[in-house]
Parts: sequence; C-alpha cells; structure tokens
Amino acid sequence: RYGLAEDEHQVGVVTGLAYTSVGGDLLHIEALRLPGKGRMKTTGTLGDVMKESIDAASSYVRSVSPQIGVKPPRFEKWDIHVHVPDGATPKDGPSAGLAMVTAIVSVLTGIPVRKDIAMTGEVTLRGNASAIGGLKEKLLAALRGGIKTVLIPKENEKDLAELPDNVKDGLEIIPVEHVSEVLKLALIREPEAVDWDEAEEETAVEAMTRAEDSKDQGAVAH
Amino acid sequence: RYGLAEDEHQVGVVTGLAYTSVGGDLLHIEALRLPGKGRMKTTGTLGDVMKESIDAASSYVRSVSPQIGVKPPRFEKWDIHVHVPDGATPKDGPSAGLAMVTAIVSVLTGIPVRKDIAMTGEVTLRGNASAIGGLKEKLLAALRGGIKTVLIPKENEKDLAELPDNVKDGLEIIPVEHVSEVLKLALIREPEAVDWDEAEEETAVEAMTRAEDSKDQGAVAH
Amino acid sequence: RYGLAEDEHQVGVVTGLAYTSVGGDLLHIEALRLPGKGRMKTTGTLGDVMKESIDAASSYVRSVSPQIGVKPPRFEKWDIHVHVPDGATPKDGPSAGLAMVTAIVSVLTGIPVRKDIAMTGEVTLRGNASAIGGLKEKLLAALRGGIKTVLIPKENEKDLAELPDNVKDGLEIIPVEHVSEVLKLALIREPEAVDWDEAEEETAVEAMTRAEDSKDQGAVAH
Amino acid sequence: RYGLAEDEHQVGVVTGLAYTSVGGDLLHIEALRLPGKGRMKTTGTLGDVMKESIDAASSYVRSVSPQIGVKPPRFEKWDIHVHVPDGATPKDGPSAGLAMVTAIVSVLTGIPVRKDIAMTGEVTLRGNASAIGGLKEKLLAALRGGIKTVLIPKENEKDLAELPDNVKDGLEIIPVEHVSEVLKLALIREPEAVDWDEAEEETAVEAMTRAEDSKDQGAVAH
Amino acid sequence: RYGLAEDEHQVGVVTGLAYTSVGGDLLHIEALRLPGKGRMKTTGTLGDVMKESIDAASSYVRSVSPQIGVKPPRFEKWDIHVHVPDGATPKDGPSAGLAMVTAIVSVLTGIPVRKDIAMTGEVTLRGNASAIGGLKEKLLAALRGGIKTVLIPKENEKDLAELPDNVKDGLEIIPVEHVSEVLKLALIREPEAVDWDEAEEETAVEAMTRAEDSKDQGAVAH
Amino acid sequence: RYGLAEDEHQVGVVTGLAYTSVGGDLLHIEALRLPGKGRMKTTGTLGDVMKESIDAASSYVRSVSPQIGVKPPRFEKWDIHVHVPDGATPKDGPSAGLAMVTAIVSVLTGIPVRKDIAMTGEVTLRGNASAIGGLKEKLLAALRGGIKTVLIPKENEKDLAELPDNVKDGLEIIPVEHVSEVLKLALIREPEAVDWDEAEEETAVEAMTRAEDSKDQGAVAH
Ligand SMILES: [Ca+2]
Ligand SMILES: [Ca+2]
Ligand SMILES: [Ca+2]
Ligand SMILES: [Ca+2]
Ligand SMILES: [Ca+2]
Ligand SMILES: [Ca+2]
Ligand SMILES: [Ca+2]
Ligand SMILES: [Ca+2]
Ligand SMILES: [Ca+2]
Ligand SMILES: [Ca+2]
Ligand SMILES: [Ca+2]
Ligand SMILES: [Ca+2]
Repeated sequence: RYGLAEDEHQVGVVTGLAYTSVGGDLLHIEALRLPGKGRMKTTGTLGDVMKESIDAASSYVRSVSPQIGVKPPRFEKWDIHVHVPDGATPKDGPSAGLAMVTAIVSVLTGIPVRKDIAMTGEVTLRGNASAIGGLKEKLLAALRGGIKTVLIPKENEKDLAELPDNVKDGLEIIPVEHVSEVLKLALIREPEAVDWDEAEEETAVEAMTRAEDSKDQGAVAH
Repeated sequence: RYGLAEDEHQVGVVTGLAYTSVGGDLLHIEALRLPGKGRMKTTGTLGDVMKESIDAASSYVRSVSPQIGVKPPRFEKWDIHVHVPDGATPKDGPSAGLAMVTAIVSVLTGIPVRKDIAMTGEVTLRGNASAIGGLKEKLLAALRGGIKTVLIPKENEKDLAELPDNVKDGLEIIPVEHVSEVLKLALIREPEAVDWDEAEEETAVEAMTRAEDSKDQGAVAH
Repeated sequence: RYGLAEDEHQVGVVTGLAYTSVGGDLLHIEALRLPGKGRMKTTGTLGDVMKESIDAASSYVRSVSPQIGVKPPRFEKWDIHVHVPDGATPKDGPSAGLAMVTAIVSVLTGIPVRKDIAMTGEVTLRGNASAIGGLKEKLLAALRGGIKTVLIPKENEKDLAELPDNVKDGLEIIPVEHVSEVLKLALIREPEAVDWDEAEEETAVEAMTRAEDSKDQGAVAH
Repeated sequence: RYGLAEDEHQVGVVTGLAYTSVGGDLLHIEALRLPGKGRMKTTGTLGDVMKESIDAASSYVRSVSPQIGVKPPRFEKWDIHVHVPDGATPKDGPSAGLAMVTAIVSVLTGIPVRKDIAMTGEVTLRGNASAIGGLKEKLLAALRGGIKTVLIPKENEKDLAELPDNVKDGLEIIPVEHVSEVLKLALIREPEAVDWDEAEEETAVEAMTRAEDSKDQGAVAH
Repeated sequence: RYGLAEDEHQVGVVTGLAYTSVGGDLLHIEALRLPGKGRMKTTGTLGDVMKESIDAASSYVRSVSPQIGVKPPRFEKWDIHVHVPDGATPKDGPSAGLAMVTAIVSVLTGIPVRKDIAMTGEVTLRGNASAIGGLKEKLLAALRGGIKTVLIPKENEKDLAELPDNVKDGLEIIPVEHVSEVLKLALIREPEAVDWDEAEEETAVEAMTRAEDSKDQGAVAH
Repeated sequence: RYGLAEDEHQVGVVTGLAYTSVGGDLLHIEALRLPGKGRMKTTGTLGDVMKESIDAASSYVRSVSPQIGVKPPRFEKWDIHVHVPDGATPKDGPSAGLAMVTAIVSVLTGIPVRKDIAMTGEVTLRGNASAIGGLKEKLLAALRGGIKTVLIPKENEKDLAELPDNVKDGLEIIPVEHVSEVLKLALIREPEAVDWDEAEEETAVEAMTRAEDSKDQGAVAH
C-alpha cells in the first residue's frame, strides 16, 4: 500500500513526499484527534527536525484556530496523535510541514483530505510555504504512486524547468505561497470560521483585568 | 512455556510472532488493565519502535472506543500495562501492532483471546494492517509452537507462494486488511458498541460552547 | 550479614538468589510501604531489566489486590520503596520477580516472610513463574547461606537432575508454577481477600456512566 | 525568501543576523502568542546557548512587563512559541538576544516590527546590549538582503572602522546600549505602560501578609 | 575547615568519613529542612550510589517517623536539602548511609548532632548498619581531624585487629548494629515519639474504607 | 563592559571572580525576581557544579528568609532567574557561592549591591565561606577591572602572603567567615528581619496537628 495513493478521501490522512538516499517516496501522514488534555503525540521513528515541524504546524493551527472553526479553549480538551508509517523507517526533515498543517486541520474540523493530492513544503509559524530539496525525486514518486496533483512551495517553482516532460505532463503541479492555499486545494470543503477574534479576546481580558484591579484596590483600601 | 501456544483463552494475552537473527519465535504479549489515570506502562526490554507501535495501537483503540463498548472518559480512570516476556531479551519492531491492538481491546472489554491463534502485522492509526518481514520464519515458529491459525497482513499474501508445503498444510493462514477483521477472529466474542457517537460529542461540545459564549457576552456587557 | 539467611521473620524482607560471574549469592530484597501517592521507588544500583521486573511485579499485585485484602483505591495513598543492598553492587535481570511480588505483598498486607526460605523465578503479568539461569550456583549459595527451603520455577525442574547430592539433600527444593503458590509457602499466614470484585467495580462504573449519560442528555435538552 | 528582508511590518517577526563558517545571513525570527499556561516553546534546531538567550529575553520582558502594557498575571494565560526557520539548519549563540526581546514584546503587545530593520546583540537580564562577533559578515548579509537599518551593540562600535565603505554607505548603522532603544527604533509605535508598579505589588503583598499574620495569630491564640 | 571536626553541636550537620584513592577524609554532611512539598534535593557532585543512599536513608526515616516525633503527613510540608561540600569534588558510595539518616533525623527534630563524633556505615531500609571499606584510612582521617568517637558497623569489627595502636588509643570506636544506636549516641538528646501507630492508621483507613463501601452500596442500590 | 566594574549600585547584580586557564576575570552575576511559582532558572552555559552552587545558595537563603525580611510562604509566589553573561562562555565551579547568595538576597529584598565590590568564595548550606582556588589571578582581574574591595574566604587568608604588592595596595581585601558578613559589606543597607521564628512555625504546626488529631479521633469514634 505504501507508495500508492489513498483509495478514498479520509479525515486526517495526508500524502506527503519524502526524499531519501534511494530516491523519492510517498509519506502517508496520519493524524487522530482524541479526547484529551491538549497533548501532541508523535510516532513513526521521527527525527527531531520532523518533530519540531509538527510543533510549528500545531502552533500555526492554534494561532488561526477561529478561522477553521475551532475556539481556542477546545484545544485543551483534545489530544492529537500524528503517526508516519511505516514505524521502523527513520524519517526526518522539515519538508512535511504543509502536510502536517493539513492533517491537523483535517482532524480538528473533521473535513476529509482529497485522496489524489500530495504536497511538500516547509511551513513557518505564519503559515508561509518555504523551499524544500529533492523536488524532482519527490515528483517522480508522486507520479509512480498515482497522485494527480502536487502542491509545492512557490520558492521551488524555479526548479520545475529541469523536470522531465513525463512528470510535467502526468502531474498537475501547483506552486503555493501560504498554507491557506493548501487548505483550499486539499480539503474537500473549506472550514467555516467561528466568532472569536482578537477584539473579543481583548475585551474579555480587559474585563478580567478590571476585576483584578478592583481586587487590588480592595487590598490597598483595607 | 515460551515457544508454545497458551493453554486456555485468556483476557489480555495474545500470541505474536517475532523474527530474529536465529529464526522465528512466539511472542507472548500480556496486557493488564488497572485502576489508574490513563497511563500506558510497557516492560520487557522493548525498543523504541515497539514502544511506539504500542502508542499507535493505544491511540487507534481510543479512537474507536465506543465501537468496543468503552466510552472515552473511561480511559482516564484506567492504566494499561503491556509486558512482553521474557524480561531480559530485547525486542523491537512494529510488527506486533495487530497483536497489541488485540491485547488492549481484550483487557478493555474483558473478552478473552482465542488461545490457538497467532498474528503478525504492523498497524496504522486507522487500523489498517501493513506488511511485515520474516513471514516464513514466523510461520515456522507458529507451527512448531502448536498454533492452529495465523493472521497475516494481506500485503504479505504474495509471500505465501514461497512457503514449504508442511507450513501451508499445518496452519490456517488468514490474510487481513484491517484490525476489525482481527478482532472478529481472535476474540472469543465480538465487543458490543455503546452509544457515544460524534454527533453526541459535538452536541455536548456545542452546549459547552454556548455556555462559554454566554460568559463572554457577560464579560463584554459589563 | 549478606550471604546469610535472615534471623527472624520480617515484613517486606525476602531472600532472592543472584547468579554472577563469580557464582551464586543471596539477594536480600527489602520493601517498605510509606504514606504517599502511589509511587514506586527503587534503589540498590539496579539495572533496567530488574527495575522492569519490579514494575511487572507491582502491576501483577495491583491486579490481584482484592485477593490479598487491599482495595485498589488504597494504592494511591501509599508509596513503595524496594531496595536491594548492598548499594554499590550493580544488579540486574528478571529472575527476582517472584521475590519482588512476595516483598510487595508482604508490605501491603503486613504479613511477615518466612526467614529460612529463598526463591528465584521470573514472573509474568499473570503471576506465572518462568525459567531462570544459574540454578546450580544459586542453590549452592542458598545452602551456604543457611537457607532450608528454595522455591524455583517448575520450568527449571529439569535442571535438578544435574545437581550434586549435597544440595539435593541439604535443601527442600519446591518447584512452583504460579506466584500464588509462592505466597502460600513464603508468608507466615495467607492474606484474606476483601470484597471488591469486577462485578462490583462494573456496577459502580455503570452507575457512574448513567450519571454521565444524564448529564449528556441535559446538555442536549437545553 | 530567506536572505531577503520581509515584505511588510508584521507582529512577532524580527530580522536577526547570523554569522556562520560560510559568512553572514539574515535570521528570520518568528514568535507567536497562543492562549496557554505561561510556557515557552522553541523550534528551529536551536542550540542550548540560543535557547538560553530566549529564556533570558523572556525573563527580561517579564521583568519590565508593566512598562510594555502587560500586567504580570497575564503571562500565566499565554504560551509563546519562538521559531527560527529554516527548520533543518542548526543555529546557536547568544547574539540574537536583542531580536528575541523584540519579537517577544511584539507578540505580547500586538505592535508590528518595522520590516526594513535588522539587529544583532546579546542581551543581559537587565536589557543591556553586549558585544557580538562577525559584525562585518553580518552587515554584508544585511546589505545583500535589502535591509536599510541595522542595530548593533555600542560595544561593537569600535569594529565599524574596519568596514568597507559600501557597507557604511548602504546601511544606517545605529549602536545601542539598551534594549529600550531597540524597541523605540524597531516597533512601529511605542508600547504604553500600565499601572502595575512595585509599590502596588508590595501593597498587595503586605495586605496578603497581614491576612496571613491574622491567621497565624489565630493559630497561636487557640 | 574541611578535614577538621566541627566547632559546636549543630542541627543537621554530621561528620561522615570518606575513603578515596589518596586516603581517608572527613565528609561534612549538611542537611536543611525547608518549608516545601516533600521533595529531597541533593548537591555536592554526588554520584548515583550516594544519591540512592540518601533516598534509602530518607525512606527509612519516613518509615519510623512517629518514633522520632514526626507524624507522617508533616513530610508533605517540608523539603529537605542534603549538601556535601566541597561542591567541586565528586563523591560516591553508600557508606555515608548512617550519617545521612542522622542528618535527616536531626533537621526533622531540630536536635543538634554531637560535634566530636564521626560515623561510617551503609544502612538498609530497616536501619541495619552494614559493612564498609577503607576502615583503616577512615579512622586515620578521623584521628587527624580531632574526632573523639567513631561509630562503625558491627560487621566491620573484625577489621579493628589490624589497626595501628595510636588509632585504637586515640579514638573511641563503637561498633553498632542498627541506626537506632547511632541516634542515641550522636544526637545530644533522644527524640520523643508521637502517637501515630499502625493501629491508628489502620483505624483511620478502615473508617475511610467503610465510607467508600457506603458509597459503593449507594451506587449499587440506585 | 565585561571585565569592568558596574557603573552604579544595582539590585541583583553582583560581581564575582572567575579563574580560567587564561587567567582571572570578573563574573557579572545577574539575578531577577519574577512573579511565579517558586522556580529557579539559570542561564549562561553554566556547568553542573555552578548550578548546584546556586541551588545551595538558594536553600541557604530560604532557610534564613525571615532574617532578610521575607516570610517563607512568599517563595512560592516568585521565580528567580540567575544569568551569568556572556551566554556563550561555559562557566563552572562552586566559588561564586557567596556572590550567588548576595544576588538572591538583593533581588528578594530589593536592596542594591555596592558597585565597587567583588567577592569570591564557596558557601555551605549554613552560610559558611570556604576556600577557593586561583586567588591571585582573581585579585589581579579585580584590580584591572576597577574594583575597590574584594571579599575572600578567611580560609584563603594564608594565600595573601604571596600576592604582589600592587594588588595588596590597590585593593581592600576583606576575609570573611560567613555570608552574613558579606551581606553587611556588599548591600547598600542591611535587610530588616520579619517576625517568623521557629516558635511561631511550630505553634502553627501544633495547632494544625491538634486539628488533625481531632479528625483522627473522630474517625476512630465512629
Ligand atoms: Ca468576536
Ligand atoms: Ca478576529
Ligand atoms: Ca449517541
Ligand atoms: Ca457514533
Ligand atoms: Ca463485591
Ligand atoms: Ca471478584
Ligand atoms: Ca500602580
Ligand atoms: Ca512602578
Ligand atoms: Ca495512636
Ligand atoms: Ca505505634
Ligand atoms: Ca514570631
Ligand atoms: Ca525567630
């Protein structure tokens, strides 16, 4: 099954692209949302850089959570588990960042990911897509694996010139600048935002602060 | 006792199959459920990949817990201990994943595992069975150990051609695609589902959220 | 004192048997029960395998705690400290498992351990005794140390043939299959069970669950 | 994108300057403020010295928090995540201290950082800027990257003499002694202080202490 | 100051004896009791065996705490810090066990330790003194350091024969079997026991358990 | 700035003296007090021995906290951060103990430290100053750095004979036996004690204990 595209749209399952010493490969990223306490668990013999890319993806998603319909306090009620099979093969690197964001958003919203799409790209804390290595090998693997569409960082667009024709003909390759474009393309529908903006948070905080001030004054007055 | 099938159906005891430099062997996996706080303990000189396979098995089971009759909040009241004797022999690898899922489901439901069945197969977070190595050696060990039935990943079906006849004659070998098939075959009866679906969870969450909204409005209004 | 049997029956003090490169030796295992929070502390320069054997022993005892008169919630109110003197000598291996179970049961119940008995044997999570190495050297050490009775795993019974006559004449050697036999032989009286069976726990859990269900319905209704 | 100045003023995004064996480079520091529990998370393959510089920056900011408009109790309600892309390149050293302080203040206050400014300098717990190495290489990188203004520690002013003319002509180089100067120059507006001075804290503490004293006297009297 | 006896009786300060490659030395053990949460802190570049000997000493003291006038719940309100100067010299081994018990009892009770006494001996969880190495070198160091009385394990009594006459004449050497003898000799007065026996604890526990039983019955009845 | 005396009296900033393979140097120790939970944070690439010396300094200060005007419960409301710039230079050793105590007392009391004083000396848990190495190199560094007064352990007084005349003429060198002398000399005014003695604590504890006894009796009577 590995090395082939998924059979159906699934929640939390995203196809990334790996680049190893023996060529490119599909990377099947699986995320689960569980009732919990805001913890992130990762398995699949992941190296520190890949674990950090999951941390960054998670923080990015939390920072935009109202835009995907999740009020920030919900995060403390769920655990997320990200697994990258197969379990015995070490994996590392930051280039699955866009896929990690997509997997996390999918499990948080319950919106499935399109099965015939793959993606590669590092992601920053602001959701910007940045350049990755091994583009040619990754696209060849996508082609072999039956993928129809591949999202790549716009910063890698310059590398497309050197690709063989069969890759350019066989795949729809879409350069992206930001993870918001990725979500539009990879999820089967767009998440709906909820009402939880900074103004609201600040209003709540100010009210809380005024209450604290009252207590302070009380303490002083006695 | 090791290297031989169990004498009776037991709760939480599952026979896996190991593949080492000196051939195949039975792997007696023991799980216990204890009153606790949602912790997972593992012993038996297990390597990191095997520990991660237990983590993945545990998350899979939690994600389908209503289907096996366990409401998610129960997980916070139990600890699970998985031990793989003998204690002094290092063990590693992801191929006991199906067995780990089976052991955990057995202790959570209290349903015994059939004594004359063994299984091998990695498991993903969605419960899919994926390919393992050393199939021939593992099946030889099952035969030697008095096992009648062995569950293997469908992805390994292609390896059956090269097996000696005595193995194919002496064992019922059943390829499986998903852990749900494993549970049907390995447990002495099927778990009954409880009523705890996503709709229910979401309704509860929404009610909770409306309550939070009221508080927010209160904060704004003052 | 080390290398000699204890002078009197004591709570939590069990004589195990070690097998090192220079021969066998007595292993004086000491356990203490302290007011606490359910923690296990181990000291004595113990290796990871011996520490795991203490974890497994502890989980086994917790799983049968009503049978030894301890209701499971009590475990959260005690700490247990297991020490294996002398402190500077590294010790490892799983073969003190039966002795660890005996020491833990003794401190939990307050029932002393017979002073002239020693034991060796790995223990599984179900309390089964399994085979150990160095039987001959361990029995010679027991004889030298003034021990009268030694409990060994039934799986090691086959090794008794090759023992010198003076060992077989000087020691009562009792093969055991399960730790329940060990407790009958090693404690000066049998623990009394308390009323806390699975039916009771499940009834309590169901009541708890019905209460949760009511709350869920309440949330839905509003 | 890396190696180039940012396109717009952003909250929490600061341009630092790195000095490596192959020359200088821009360092894009990203900070996020998330609802949380006062935790600091760092990613980007950061070495221990850089992580400690973030710890020191964070403590400095907490120590002056009322001056930037944040009452100290707010810190326990937020997490801060600092990421330094790209994720796979190891980074270390204390010289991004001023940039770390600026990024943290920016996310806490919501005030954007000027896009065409870069900075280098270690920072002490009192906010003093101290000398760094590789000034020439760092300034060349700033020039290449389209930066207009660079803040450097006053202790490094003596190193400016040896700079090539094109660097001195192409950059506005501003030596600073304290991070307060940095914030004035790098943020698009100055933070407003809130009323939370030491006197206030001490008054509150004394009131609390008097309450404790009453309880103590009560204990004595009985 | 190191290498010399203390000037006055002090609470929590005990003179142990070290044995190194360059001979014996005095070991000035300092313990402090602080308001806290039941934590043990150790400093002085201590090796794992010495840290474990402090853990064992602490558990022994907790197990006999009513005998020294401390009710067990008090332990959760204090931290204990054990420091062995000088800070830069690595120290290890279990032979300061008796001294650690004495220091901990002294800080818990507030009873000073006699200034002209030194001691060496490993201690078990039951408070038994067991043999140590380097007796001759340790006693020579005690003599040089102005110590009058040295407590040694009775198991080391056999080593006294080979001591030079000046050591036997210059020191009062007292073999001890149990730490209770040490406390009688080393503290300037004996601690007074408080009323907290096992019967009392068990009565409380039973009452607690009956209350739990009532709740269980309630759960069953509904 | 490093290697020079501070410009003004500051709270929490103390000048220590380091001794390295290339000679002596000033060590600028910075402490901050932050609203918190009783945690100690250390930065500056500090080795384990220096970290332990900060732990010991902190425990000493907590043990005498009423003498410096701080009631023990206040410690649970503050964090302390100790930083030793520059961040990239590894530092180790116990000889900054007196300086650490002084920095911690300064931030707890808010009393500034004299700017033209430096100090070196290990400190015990009782606040005793003990001998350090590299006295000559440290004093030369103090002289070069514009320091007027240096506090050294009385145990190092014997080393003063071998100092060059210019050091003895240029510095006021004050041997000290205890940290209380250091605080008198280094702080610009003496801390005022608060009323929190052991009698008071014990009275409170006894009252608490009597309350517990009542509860125990209640449990027994029912
Ligand atoms: Ca809103
Ligand atoms: Ca908004
Ligand atoms: Ca439902
Ligand atoms: Ca459902
Ligand atoms: Ca019952
Ligand atoms: Ca039962
Ligand atoms: Ca104010
Ligand atoms: Ca103020
Ligand atoms: Ca009593
Ligand atoms: Ca008693
Ligand atoms: Ca008082
Ligand atoms: Ca007092």
